[in-house]
Amino acid sequence: MTPPLGTPSSMRTLNQRAVLERLRHTGPATRPQIAKDTGLSKPTVGQALLGLEEAGLVRATGRTSAGPGRSAVVYEADPTAGHVLAVDIGRERIRLSVVDLSGTLIANRDERNRCRSASSLVRAVRKLAEELLESAGRTLDDVVVKVVGSPGVPDRGNRALQHAPNLPGWGRRGLLDELEAELGAGLMVENDANLAALGERESGAARGANSFVLITVGTGLGMGIVVDGKLFRGANGAAGEIGYLPYGRFDEAMLLSGELSPPPGGMLERVSAARSVVELAAAFGVEEPESAREVFDAARAGDGQALRAVELIAVRLAYGVASVAAVIDPELVVLGGGVGRNGDLLLEPLHRALRGFTPLSPRIVEGELGEDAVLSGAIAVGLAEAQRLVFDRHFGGN
Amino acid sequence: MTPPLGTPSSMRTLNQRAVLERLRHTGPATRPQIAKDTGLSKPTVGQALLGLEEAGLVRATGRTSAGPGRSAVVYEADPTAGHVLAVDIGRERIRLSVVDLSGTLIANRDERNRCRSASSLVRAVRKLAEELLESAGRTLDDVVVKVVGSPGVPDRGNRALQHAPNLPGWGRRGLLDELEAELGAGLMVENDANLAALGERESGAARGANSFVLITVGTGLGMGIVVDGKLFRGANGAAGEIGYLPYGRFDEAMLLSGELSPPPGGMLERVSAARSVVELAAAFGVEEPESAREVFDAARAGDGQALRAVELIAVRLAYGVASVAAVIDPELVVLGGGVGRNGDLLLEPLHRALRGFTPLSPRIVEGELGEDAVLSGAIAVGLAEAQRLVFDRHFGGN
Repeated sequence: MTPPLGTPSSMRTLNQRAVLERLRHTGPATRPQIAKDTGLSKPTVGQALLGLEEAGLVRATGRTSAGPGRSAVVYEADPTAGHVLAVDIGRERIRLSVVDLSGTLIANRDERNRCRSASSLVRAVRKLAEELLESAGRTLDDVVVKVVGSPGVPDRGNRALQHAPNLPGWGRRGLLDELEAELGAGLMVENDANLAALGERESGAARGANSFVLITVGTGLGMGIVVDGKLFRGANGAAGEIGYLPYGRFDEAMLLSGELSPPPGGMLERVSAARSVVELAAAFGVEEPESAREVFDAARAGDGQALRAVELIAVRLAYGVASVAAVIDPELVVLGGGVGRNGDLLLEPLHRALRGFTPLSPRIVEGELGEDAVLSGAIAVGLAEAQRLVFDRHFGGN
Repeated sequence: MTPPLGTPSSMRTLNQRAVLERLRHTGPATRPQIAKDTGLSKPTVGQALLGLEEAGLVRATGRTSAGPGRSAVVYEADPTAGHVLAVDIGRERIRLSVVDLSGTLIANRDERNRCRSASSLVRAVRKLAEELLESAGRTLDDVVVKVVGSPGVPDRGNRALQHAPNLPGWGRRGLLDELEAELGAGLMVENDANLAALGERESGAARGANSFVLITVGTGLGMGIVVDGKLFRGANGAAGEIGYLPYGRFDEAMLLSGELSPPPGGMLERVSAARSVVELAAAFGVEEPESAREVFDAARAGDGQALRAVELIAVRLAYGVASVAAVIDPELVVLGGGVGRNGDLLLEPLHRALRGFTPLSPRIVEGELGEDAVLSGAIAVGLAEAQRLVFDRHFGGN
């Protein structure tokens, strides 16, 4: 029950919130320090601390010893008051992290995704999460918020993830319910490129950028758009699905027949993601390349055929950047994903090709978080939600 | 001088503003009616009306006659308290409208643009504006706000309009200063596609749409983007410059040389604007088509060759719509401009081709305002600004 505004109990809640925010953002402190920083009286702070301690949100962490006068109790926001589970589901890998409420990493895990169906993938995620939590002496019940990053567009109506052809069955009606049934309450599902964008903004190449895009190129091709500090999702959540950018030669007469369909994942994804790196390298004579990473490594080592494949991928990414620039004119483009993060090889030819497509020239950089970008974004989103939830659970939201 | 908030004079200003807003939005009223609608006392309303009348913002328009009791004075917001000049500068035509502060059209004009230089165009606009105002018994001094819509992106730094290759000299440093020198204070310059989007939202096909795009296809190709009711301009104002979408076949090796540049106006503009309609029609055997309009008229009359040209243009516009959908996923696409407004011929093949490019399928409609869209948007923007200005000029802004 939320008490109405302006009553003593809602004042108490506001004061408790102020005290907790102080401890979360500026670190451990004594009662007088908190009173000074918040402007509250020492008795009010004392009362707030009492309530927060009883709720398990604040704990005593020791006593001051230095300085004149009696020593005082030092309080801190209790980082164990809740945990956040972040999951990055990709075609190739499943990655998980658990952090406590202060954002400190408790445990993480990186596994190959061997699942061939949506159901087995959902179960695998649950099993990995449980094992990970167990290794840290915790259970799913300790986790207040679970953030799952995945390719595709969450469809709240059908409770599925649309536009994720690389994950079989992911578009099945009710998929999100299955995931929630396995992972329990507090589930948030977000497009992985969106989370990667938030991650790079939180602690990577987009720090301080208010409006930018992150283009992620790996198994698939996607983009997260941040405008004025917030995710821009479009009318149906499909903003940034740039795998669907039309690309290449097409038969106009066939198109007019109305009977053509684009390849799964879209025309631009078909020619610029990891699979194309391998295909192009093979076509240029690289012997049986096994993965995009292998092709980039060979190019880095001076293999001219691999380099040629990488340059063609750069032309296609330039095409994508040119398209994005024409539509939304971003100030910054961050490249991420298993393919995109090879900026040392991609950026220079990408810039050259871009000049041939468009006079617009956004700043383009490689992401700084590498394969951790999605998890970083998931943790940032999850922490903000968890900090809100654990407080409201005890004191009501207002 | 703006009085500080909370003082009697700022209270008086707030009350005057409330009374004026009441008269502007709900129409003429008596003192008691205004008091009832605003919640102000009758003496306060009387005092506010006095101040507003003295400032020339409100006038008595007659007396009530019906009903019991004495007749009362009816007041209205004085529509002559200021005027707005709207100018739509295009490669082919220059169009102007003058409205009074109530939005009532006073006069308008539509002239062929024969200017071959920026200076002559700027002078022509001034001359047309003066003639137009004179015909209505007004002068430029009666105009509080002048809104000029133009292709291109206003560049506040260089005081020029970038990315408007169809208007020679428009990108010259200081061009906006020249325009201001001719038209006087109160000048607002805005991209024409942006204004057309606002126009269609105010009174056309996008009424009630909070987020949508307007694609304008005429001499050039452009797009206005509205997100949450506001124009979305991008980092440098170039959002929506979809003429720059890459399109068609390109030589990857040449692109990698870094020595290619796109055609002026961009790759997609080159193949989808009015000139291409004419070129395609000629290539298909239509005899010496003189204008895009002629080709559309011929297609409408059943000319198979003209129809073929129109269908190819539809494919290219579908390509543009597919690109826009992949990047920002709009709920609604409005087609405008001399080419775009032929929805009866374009929409059906556009939809067929779109399915071949992308699974995303925004709603696509023809604009309702035709060639008046830019002026309508300019008037809407100008009126809001003028209503603010005439009040603040007398009473200070707060």
